[in-house]
Amino acid sequence: MWKKREAEMEGFDLKAYAEEKRKLINSALESYLPDKADGYEKEIVEAMRYSLFAGGKRLRPILCLAGSEAVGGTSEQVLPFACAIELIHTYSLIHDDLPSMDDDSLRRGIPTNHMVFGEAIAILAGDGLLTEAFRIMTLPRTWEAMEHSRVLKAVNILAEAAGYMGMVGGQAMDIRCQGMPADPGTVEYIHSHKTGALIRASVVCGALLAGGTDEQINALSSYGSSLGVAFQIWDDILDIEGHTEVMGKEGGKDLQLGKVTYPSVLGIDRAKKEAYRYIEKGIEAIKDFGREADPLRAIARYVTERRR
Amino acid sequence: MWKKREAEMEGFDLKAYAEEKRKLINSALESYLPDKADGYEKEIVEAMRYSLFAGGKRLRPILCLAGSEAVGGTSEQVLPFACAIELIHTYSLIHDDLPSMDDDSLRRGIPTNHMVFGEAIAILAGDGLLTEAFRIMTLPRTWEAMEHSRVLKAVNILAEAAGYMGMVGGQAMDIRCQGMPADPGTVEYIHSHKTGALIRASVVCGALLAGGTDEQINALSSYGSSLGVAFQIWDDILDIEGHTEVMGKEGGKDLQLGKVTYPSVLGIDRAKKEAYRYIEKGIEAIKDFGREADPLRAIARYVTERRR
Repeated sequence: MWKKREAEMEGFDLKAYAEEKRKLINSALESYLPDKADGYEKEIVEAMRYSLFAGGKRLRPILCLAGSEAVGGTSEQVLPFACAIELIHTYSLIHDDLPSMDDDSLRRGIPTNHMVFGEAIAILAGDGLLTEAFRIMTLPRTWEAMEHSRVLKAVNILAEAAGYMGMVGGQAMDIRCQGMPADPGTVEYIHSHKTGALIRASVVCGALLAGGTDEQINALSSYGSSLGVAFQIWDDILDIEGHTEVMGKEGGKDLQLGKVTYPSVLGIDRAKKEAYRYIEKGIEAIKDFGREADPLRAIARYVTERRR
Repeated sequence: MWKKREAEMEGFDLKAYAEEKRKLINSALESYLPDKADGYEKEIVEAMRYSLFAGGKRLRPILCLAGSEAVGGTSEQVLPFACAIELIHTYSLIHDDLPSMDDDSLRRGIPTNHMVFGEAIAILAGDGLLTEAFRIMTLPRTWEAMEHSRVLKAVNILAEAAGYMGMVGGQAMDIRCQGMPADPGTVEYIHSHKTGALIRASVVCGALLAGGTDEQINALSSYGSSLGVAFQIWDDILDIEGHTEVMGKEGGKDLQLGKVTYPSVLGIDRAKKEAYRYIEKGIEAIKDFGREADPLRAIARYVTERRR
């Protein structure tokens, strides 16, 4: 089965796929949060847009679209949710970069939000993006043509993944454990929550909204969990091996902050092996899907190939 | 009509009503966010609970319950939404108090969140409360017995009221305008958004979820708008006239920060008159409701009677 899937994937062009989806997502994001020429909201919208259009890879929204396609749905029907997910991701980056958190001055090659707009507006821009995500998910035009109970469940899954049981919880432990010796259990908690939860929820929501069966959703949930952990391990490796000009952010920052990471606990070589193992596990989880899950397989492969 | 309502209200005991509702709300909040004896989420939950159970008046959730009752619904059926609203309100207080915002060290008579848990955890506690609000609103047990489209609309109304078109937008302008001469239009924008939007949404959601008609919801929306502005004007007056021991927070803080407030633009006497005018306008908006709206009338009266 596995060999067959690999062979089938030969013809799949991830670069072209991702480029097409990014265009779709960026154009939808632009329509949800257009530039304000004037008015009282001009400045806060400018700050929200600054980070939203700062050249993100759009991994999470692409996963949401690919999750829909994997169960026979379309990108278009889950596009509002994909956009909402990117808003949530962007908010988390703005808040993570704040002086009281990771104190980063550079992100994706440009100054971080608070460096440009000041701390107060950066906090509010994050708050605004997070809240706007839930507004977009619940706009009548988002859900009118969908099964309402699935929409409510998808919002619930995203809120759980983003909140204190997910991303916020992971970030809180990440902050708490800086400079402390950490056990593998804590590293896994931080990574699976800080990064893994939203990545998993992105795929799951796409599939749920597009009418996926429980069995399909469970398989995609396993895929997403594995992908999320692998993604974070690779990020930590890049932080050590990468340089500022390639990464677009300051390299070696984790080490400097005394962060709990896989490479710091396991060493680089074992961390890489762990990442590969998670990727294989993720691809294995969706072995029963046909070619419509090829984008998800290709994304998994890409995670441990990327340089930034 | 007006005289009749006043007479009818004679028998209404707001203190007992509010006390009963507060008990209901506090007990539900406790069940949604119980203390964690251990585990990775222990600390972030502790920080979230610290501000959530710091003695708030529960005005907004009470308005949500009263909004349901005004259209013939019960408190119980909208209780999860009432709790979610209090979480949103609490998050906004934690973020407003941060050093980069209003830099407040005291709130409701006790140290503010960041004074106890540090800035990073305070920001995350706010993020966690905001996100948890949307998780509670979309839990299956919240919506299973309700019309799903009304639930989705209510979530949307709250997200709009809390986000950059509402509370976040008002707070951003508030920060932006500190120390600057402001016109009455700006003062009204700040107040109607920073405070008014969530107060209005609280009543409206209660009524919407309980099956209120469009006409009823519009009337309650007007009531809520007026109440919100009056509430903020009175808050600004108390900030000038009140003392720290009564207010539970530092008095004179607005003046010190060069905040744009009604008293600073109109003077205290005219500001008081404006508050009374808004209260009358709010009560007038719900003149066609019967005794079931007495709690809302009594709450309006209370706004300009309170000392903190």
